Amino acid sequence: MARILRGKEVADALTVKMKQDVEDLKAKGVTPTLCIFRVGERADDMSYEKGATKRAQSVGIAVKHVVLPADISQEDFDREFVAVNADDSIHGILFFRPLPKHLDSEKARQMLDPAKDIDGCTDLSLAGVFTNRKIGFAPCTAQAVMEILHHFDIPVAGKKVAVISRSLIVGRPLGMMLMHENATVVNCHTGTVDIPSITSKADILVAAAGRLHIITKEYTNPDQVVIDVGINWDQEKGGISGDLVFEDVEPNVAAVTPVPGGVGAVTTCVLIGHVVEAAKRRFDYEA
Amino acid sequence: MARILRGKEVADALTVKMKQDVEDLKAKGVTPTLCIFRVGERADDMSYEKGATKRAQSVGIAVKHVVLPADISQEDFDREFVAVNADDSIHGILFFRPLPKHLDSEKARQMLDPAKDIDGCTDLSLAGVFTNRKIGFAPCTAQAVMEILHHFDIPVAGKKVAVISRSLIVGRPLGMMLMHENATVVNCHTGTVDIPSITSKADILVAAAGRLHIITKEYTNPDQVVIDVGINWDQEKGGISGDLVFEDVEPNVAAVTPVPGGVGAVTTCVLIGHVVEAAKRRFDYEA
Repeated sequence: MARILRGKEVADALTVKMKQDVEDLKAKGVTPTLCIFRVGERADDMSYEKGATKRAQSVGIAVKHVVLPADISQEDFDREFVAVNADDSIHGILFFRPLPKHLDSEKARQMLDPAKDIDGCTDLSLAGVFTNRKIGFAPCTAQAVMEILHHFDIPVAGKKVAVISRSLIVGRPLGMMLMHENATVVNCHTGTVDIPSITSKADILVAAAGRLHIITKEYTNPDQVVIDVGINWDQEKGGISGDLVFEDVEPNVAAVTPVPGGVGAVTTCVLIGHVVEAAKRRFDYEA
Repeated sequence: MARILRGKEVADALTVKMKQDVEDLKAKGVTPTLCIFRVGERADDMSYEKGATKRAQSVGIAVKHVVLPADISQEDFDREFVAVNADDSIHGILFFRPLPKHLDSEKARQMLDPAKDIDGCTDLSLAGVFTNRKIGFAPCTAQAVMEILHHFDIPVAGKKVAVISRSLIVGRPLGMMLMHENATVVNCHTGTVDIPSITSKADILVAAAGRLHIITKEYTNPDQVVIDVGINWDQEKGGISGDLVFEDVEPNVAAVTPVPGGVGAVTTCVLIGHVVEAAKRRFDYEA
């Protein structure tokens, strides 16, 4: 029986710390402020917005919503985006991508001030992850995995870690963050031959293929810690499941995160933490 | 007996292509121009400058030298640097780091226009390597390794590659460039436990620890291609040697680059190639 690494426990600990940080900032006259910038009424955007808003307010962060019509012109979009980007009262901007097809998502990404890039999507945020310096922010899901490992005191330095993903939101940044902490990392991907032969030798396995039920016990070993990043629609269950065949993997590894209730429960928390961090950095910079 | 992968052969092939590209650009009215920006008279800077100048001129690239006194003030340095950075007749800038101690090397690095960053040192160049997009340029040594693999038709896709280095000039960018071409890569570093157990299972080994004679045959296997990036002073020999114990490794692997005459012979060529590429990009952008 594996130890079950629950995301809620991590999120709760991060929340306690965040609340204290927000109080400290407010005592200095700063209210960390998140701007959620949405175009149109896509259901999954609105669901994520609702969760982020609730989480932000629960730690004392102010939330501004900018909602633009789905048929807004590029020109009007740019003007609104530039205004929010330049607004000193806003510390972090969450904007939903992709934008509607007639708008230039890539242009918006490049316009975003890295100092407000709480989702870690700008080139300078990614350069920060690559070079291990505090430019912008790490992609939230990648950082959520690190927070889970840290919270449960799972050693990373000197360990072998296999990450199934080379995406810019999980695999590549996570590989870098792990290596910065002295792990030896291999990213497995669609070009990798015989993935189980690699992952089964790792001390830690991060499954982030984004494919339902592809990771069986052959990918693992009994001493392994397994982090399941997958968020896949499971028709049979009528809900969300991870990349793992959980009932096959769980009895055969040392520890594992559930889905739901694992990485996903930490990701929004990391996003909100970035707003606090952005406000702290701005205060320190101006002080 | 291993196949010896000589850098000169790669450099010669790259040079032929570059000459043609320079001719094509000149026919369009563009003379690719390199600016070498040096502060003081450090011997190794001047030696590198001489080599780069010769190589540039041999393919028809114009070279401008800006040489500033070693005791130049930060203010004067900034003014000169900004002028070169803004000068439209210059396509690529090579500036020697570190600058003398009283000048801010990091500030200069951040000021440099990524479009002219032929040495791949700016944050946006590194973001380009990380995200696999044409922003700035890759660090020359990392790219030189890729050029060698390509020139000798050594397959990378689906292969396991071990890179002994996580530096920003070799290990990290090279790991990314290899992964973008579908290799499965592990970067070994000072935090890695039992490096030979990892590297000996790789199809390709890149040794870039920067330490004389540390790589023995135990790190390798008979089917392996070994690229030696090390440029270390060898007291005994009275010259430059690589990271390999060459006479131990060479008989026991499939192919290997010598030092000198391997990666080092290609690096300057890649630098000069970046000037040509910078001129091409600017022409295409303006066209």
